[in-house]
Amino acid sequence: MNNFIFQNPVKLIMGKGMIGHLSREIPAGSRVMITFGGGSVRANGVYDQVKEALKDYYTVEFWGIEPNPAVETIRSAVELGKREKVDFLLAVGGGSVLDGTKLIAAALLSDKDPWDLVLSRTPLTATVPLGTVLTLPATGSEMNRNAVISRKETQEKYGITANFPEFSILDPEVTFSLPSYQIACGIADTFVHVMEQYITVTGESRIADRWAEGILRTLTEIAPLIREDQSNYDTMADFMFSATMALNGIIRMGVTEDWSTHQIGHELTALHGLTHGHTLAIVLPANLRVRSEIKAGKLLQYGERVWGINQGTPEERIEAAIEKTEEFFRSLGLTTRLHEEGIGQETIAEIERRFNERKIAFGEQNDVTGEVTRKILEAAL
Amino acid sequence: MNNFIFQNPVKLIMGKGMIGHLSREIPAGSRVMITFGGGSVRANGVYDQVKEALKDYYTVEFWGIEPNPAVETIRSAVELGKREKVDFLLAVGGGSVLDGTKLIAAALLSDKDPWDLVLSRTPLTATVPLGTVLTLPATGSEMNRNAVISRKETQEKYGITANFPEFSILDPEVTFSLPSYQIACGIADTFVHVMEQYITVTGESRIADRWAEGILRTLTEIAPLIREDQSNYDTMADFMFSATMALNGIIRMGVTEDWSTHQIGHELTALHGLTHGHTLAIVLPANLRVRSEIKAGKLLQYGERVWGINQGTPEERIEAAIEKTEEFFRSLGLTTRLHEEGIGQETIAEIERRFNERKIAFGEQNDVTGEVTRKILEAAL
Repeated sequence: MNNFIFQNPVKLIMGKGMIGHLSREIPAGSRVMITFGGGSVRANGVYDQVKEALKDYYTVEFWGIEPNPAVETIRSAVELGKREKVDFLLAVGGGSVLDGTKLIAAALLSDKDPWDLVLSRTPLTATVPLGTVLTLPATGSEMNRNAVISRKETQEKYGITANFPEFSILDPEVTFSLPSYQIACGIADTFVHVMEQYITVTGESRIADRWAEGILRTLTEIAPLIREDQSNYDTMADFMFSATMALNGIIRMGVTEDWSTHQIGHELTALHGLTHGHTLAIVLPANLRVRSEIKAGKLLQYGERVWGINQGTPEERIEAAIEKTEEFFRSLGLTTRLHEEGIGQETIAEIERRFNERKIAFGEQNDVTGEVTRKILEAAL
Repeated sequence: MNNFIFQNPVKLIMGKGMIGHLSREIPAGSRVMITFGGGSVRANGVYDQVKEALKDYYTVEFWGIEPNPAVETIRSAVELGKREKVDFLLAVGGGSVLDGTKLIAAALLSDKDPWDLVLSRTPLTATVPLGTVLTLPATGSEMNRNAVISRKETQEKYGITANFPEFSILDPEVTFSLPSYQIACGIADTFVHVMEQYITVTGESRIADRWAEGILRTLTEIAPLIREDQSNYDTMADFMFSATMALNGIIRMGVTEDWSTHQIGHELTALHGLTHGHTLAIVLPANLRVRSEIKAGKLLQYGERVWGINQGTPEERIEAAIEKTEEFFRSLGLTTRLHEEGIGQETIAEIERRFNERKIAFGEQNDVTGEVTRKILEAAL
């Protein structure tokens, strides 16, 4: 087991009707800015529940935080928040709304432009307090300090470290009306979050391994159930809970992480606007194939414990495990190859160029250079 | 999935050499009272590491918090702490030292007698801040709000809810020199903590089930390894991590709990001084046998996923799972029957009398009355 420090103070409030708890969690007299994405919260009743719960507060609404939240949008929200002197933020939406609002929380207390905060590469710890009402399980943003911010102008997309939300409210019923593509991307995102913390080094932590495998098996069990019936409360609760547990620090305690699939995926989103979870479904299988040697031990364990693969040579078992993974993503209705999304050599060359220019490498052995990234993306063609 | 609220702000600092982090965690200028149990921390080097890390602080030492911490001892510690005007507590020891110090933390800010705080049955939230250095994995006290306090005079033992520690430092190397009986009791304690949160209702949370099973399988895997080599860092780290994860709130999210084995076990400790983990190894198998009907679904799942039992009628598989459980405790070197500890009908009658007098019942269906408790203890004879 590697040495580690873990702390996650987020108050997780989960269940039917829990949006009504809002007024217990936000200090009385707060000036609250509520941030939203598009209008789906009006259709599914979340907007009404939130407004009802906050009827005794002074509230300002900011609408329009888009998928892959753009710093251009964040700037407008910060202006509104400063003008209205808000002292509490409530993000109501999916990972993009939450991520964008984490940056707003820091920018409200700063004189710097939000993009300079993104580029500062230091944790943004001076923030206005933030609560969240999650409407789309996927990114885990509701229970971590991470956010990913894009800049449209330059097609760039970077991760930042901000503060934890004070609380997050998860009512599984809000997922009943989600479009199936969003659910597919949310499942893929959750699956790959676990894989990035799991398919690295063997024998570091028995519990972390079992817990990662527990989430992966849960996802493979519930994916077909969700396709059959998206209104089954317990199934949707398992989905929502999986996404939160996959990226709140719990399963990374004491183990080595990778995250190269995410770094490559972010570039595909930045250049083509492809939904985050979908990019991961394309990059992960190829990444595992290209780097199967350094990941052999974990891939064998994964194949056996998650997919029941225990026949054949190690090479055959590893390939079978990767095939199962790709098939799983396809079973969600996602494509898993670049050509299916009309992406080809030009994009691959641009991503290689960007990684080389930034002189960066990713992965548990820092071996995912620009050149290796090209190999991975070519394996995903 | 049941509705739930989860929050656990403890900073968990785990690994080799992490005791040196103490001075980063305790505010400079604090007046620190360090609480200890017996002298084992002198022999294993923990005392020296703690004193070295705190050499720039004003420190007072309180020694002698015994197994099943007695309120009589806590009173002396509170007197010392008040006299010395301490404003930070550092508990260095196992669950008993940590539990006792949680009560000290509340009593230092109260005019009430510590036993009145125990009997108050309200959470003790006004406390002096507390950090811990754990030396014996078992109770999970390092990452929860629980404490169990005894009163020698009246042979009573009750649980209280106090505050979370600010931080807990876990260095697996401190476990290398633990007596094997303490390790056996620690493993049994951890195992039963998980069982009390798991062997209740089926189908409430796939993740909670998998995570509980993950800890149980880890314990069954590492127990024989620890007997072979108590100095294997990774094995002992898995043990220490298991104990913390078993009772920090993570695996109870969204699921129904039992805790009747603990309530009955506390009485055996109060009346006979039997070590906590050992009482659980005696009570749990009998409890599962007597209440196997209401727990049938979970017992079948447990038998299959933890012990690989998938042959026979449901009744046979349930009995096989309970037998495996009892055998596991015996493999640790623990007795699992009351008569082996010289405990008989007189004690059973006294415990039944106490539960009836207090008009209490335990368990997920509130069905463990005095009468059912007698049946359970008779099944453990």
